[in-house]
Amino acid sequence: MPTINSERLLHDLYYLRSIGSVGSGVVRPAFSKADMEARHWLQGQFIAAGLKTTIDGVGNVLGISSNSGPALLLGSHADTQPTGGWLDGALGVIYGLEVVRALAEDPLTSNLAVDVVALQDEESRFFGCLGSRSLSGLLEGGIDSSLVDADGIRLVDAITDAGLSDTPRARLEPGRYKGFLEAHIEQGPHLEAENLKIGVVTSIVGLGGRRFTFKGQQNHAGTTMMHLRKDAASALFDLANSINQGFRAIASPRTVWTMGRVIVHPGAVSIVPGYGELDLQYRDPSNQILDSLEAEIEQIVESVSSRVDVEISMGLARERISPVELNPMLRNHLRLAAEGRAPSQWTEMDSGAYHDAGVMSEVLPAAMLFIPSIGGVSHDFSEDSHDEDILLGCQVLAEATVQILTS
Amino acid sequence: MPTINSERLLHDLYYLRSIGSVGSGVVRPAFSKADMEARHWLQGQFIAAGLKTTIDGVGNVLGISSNSGPALLLGSHADTQPTGGWLDGALGVIYGLEVVRALAEDPLTSNLAVDVVALQDEESRFFGCLGSRSLSGLLEGGIDSSLVDADGIRLVDAITDAGLSDTPRARLEPGRYKGFLEAHIEQGPHLEAENLKIGVVTSIVGLGGRRFTFKGQQNHAGTTMMHLRKDAASALFDLANSINQGFRAIASPRTVWTMGRVIVHPGAVSIVPGYGELDLQYRDPSNQILDSLEAEIEQIVESVSSRVDVEISMGLARERISPVELNPMLRNHLRLAAEGRAPSQWTEMDSGAYHDAGVMSEVLPAAMLFIPSIGGVSHDFSEDSHDEDILLGCQVLAEATVQILTS
Repeated sequence: MPTINSERLLHDLYYLRSIGSVGSGVVRPAFSKADMEARHWLQGQFIAAGLKTTIDGVGNVLGISSNSGPALLLGSHADTQPTGGWLDGALGVIYGLEVVRALAEDPLTSNLAVDVVALQDEESRFFGCLGSRSLSGLLEGGIDSSLVDADGIRLVDAITDAGLSDTPRARLEPGRYKGFLEAHIEQGPHLEAENLKIGVVTSIVGLGGRRFTFKGQQNHAGTTMMHLRKDAASALFDLANSINQGFRAIASPRTVWTMGRVIVHPGAVSIVPGYGELDLQYRDPSNQILDSLEAEIEQIVESVSSRVDVEISMGLARERISPVELNPMLRNHLRLAAEGRAPSQWTEMDSGAYHDAGVMSEVLPAAMLFIPSIGGVSHDFSEDSHDEDILLGCQVLAEATVQILTS
Repeated sequence: MPTINSERLLHDLYYLRSIGSVGSGVVRPAFSKADMEARHWLQGQFIAAGLKTTIDGVGNVLGISSNSGPALLLGSHADTQPTGGWLDGALGVIYGLEVVRALAEDPLTSNLAVDVVALQDEESRFFGCLGSRSLSGLLEGGIDSSLVDADGIRLVDAITDAGLSDTPRARLEPGRYKGFLEAHIEQGPHLEAENLKIGVVTSIVGLGGRRFTFKGQQNHAGTTMMHLRKDAASALFDLANSINQGFRAIASPRTVWTMGRVIVHPGAVSIVPGYGELDLQYRDPSNQILDSLEAEIEQIVESVSSRVDVEISMGLARERISPVELNPMLRNHLRLAAEGRAPSQWTEMDSGAYHDAGVMSEVLPAAMLFIPSIGGVSHDFSEDSHDEDILLGCQVLAEATVQILTS
């Protein structure tokens, strides 16, 4: 079996971390200066590893092996959250690169065809999983010119600024691949808590989102008697609290829901708020549970609306993403490789976070491997994993890659 | 009795409105360019009305009659909310100016001593009722150099920028005044709803404020199971909802409370919020009710803290302002003047909003007169009153002024 080069792997992870680093974290959102610098550096590394490499029209860095197929595609995304951690998607990209190099250095595996990709904008600066959607052919037509980031910057302008406006978007070569493998940090506490080293992902949970808007009447907080108020904030508090209570009653053990974005306008201590917004996101591995959560939402909106003098409306904050079952054959190879390197220290688990593998699974067999996150923390400057876990994960990925391509 | 000059009164109100006007509203916060321009214009008008006039070290425009006392002080504040209405404090300032002019034009009243003041920062850009606190001697020592506005601009720097750093702060001349009269729009719907023209204010409600902070743990919205979350937003929703329920049970018919400022951090759809802030303000004409509201708050914080894994702390958002009973003698003169000009179309009422008269009442007999607000709206560009109500209110104020000074 090929052996990964620990020093080289860690060096490249650290180097990538240095591009856009802020303290212990990384600020490298899609199409930022740092993001494009990272992509050009990755292109150089992919080329040095012997891959024919392009940066495509949405910034995907795609390195293609010159070996004949069938091939396996490895990778993840290289962009980060606005205040991101250093591993997140970067880990899976550098893993892919190191597996290519390790296999090339071993005469027994140097003929295997392994491609690597650094995908773009998984973190939704403009459009979540933009890179994998484009690469897998799920983005029909051109780039929607109405797509903007939180500051109103248009995706099409960001692409132009990155010098990619005349660059074609890459597509997966039909028939080339046996599948796609994405390694990632867990972003949760389970592996660490149970002293496990590898998670083999069975499914990616589905999710849905709603945005509630509350239209009341802005007024003076001293002179407007309670019975005359149309207080958007109080209606929002009531709805949010009712959702927490209602969801608790019907949730599965794997259901999670979050109300992370709250706007109360005008936001002054002494003014009855006339307007509010609340976002709700909910996730579960079962479409049926997602259905029942959505039915509960409808009932709660109706019930709260009946007791407040505020107009509550509800919109889709995003299209429902259905739960994704990952490919059993690929998962089986990951299990065998994990058991070989970390006997009894691996588990099957679902992914509460969404990933590019969810998109890729629509056109290719796809699977995922997790390594432990320290404290379960991610999307935060303090995100980290132990070196030994990072090295082990890459070795497991390398061995599974060989097995998949040779079995 | 002297008669006010309707055309002159409306002209001056419209002129003052034009300084800092935005659409139908006015943006003239304390010490802004527009605010200082308005104060210099007012100084000119006060001088033209025969008053010895200064702009003092906090921007108060104080016009002193050369007639011998006892005197009456009329006025209100000239600053506005960040997006304010055109009448608010401006009405009471121009009323004072017009009463001075009307009395001076009538040989029977031209000997009466009426002073006028345009107070500063009633609207709390830096420090609520700064002008009246300073004028009444309640601001001991110098200006606190830590006072800043919402953008972090220091009050001491704003004073310097206004050219006032070397100007002394004015103080009321001890023994000069029989009292202070402040006219103001109602800022509520009561007068209009009952087709009344004048409100004689009996008391200004007291108020208190608390700021709650919620410290949880920011985390990934997909991978952090519900039982492991420390969700600052859900704790905030629970507390806010519990306050609405708890307060409803113990409120008097005059109690109002508002949670107008809500912060949820980091404010992303897909991140479990790690931090939140909530402001609560409550008002009532009775200190006893304010006490019981505060006891209820303590209980609710304890009870919510016991059921959420989030650290809730509570601070004073402001010092308690006790309810203020306005001066019976002055109120009686306002009642008589109101009945004379608007028989059966006036009422006694308390003020749900705080006013400079509340500060002035600590050192002088003080009273207030309200005119109707269209739709009860204030602190908004659409704030307005009917011309006929504006004119009537000023005439009533003029007549009460004469009666107070001659009885």
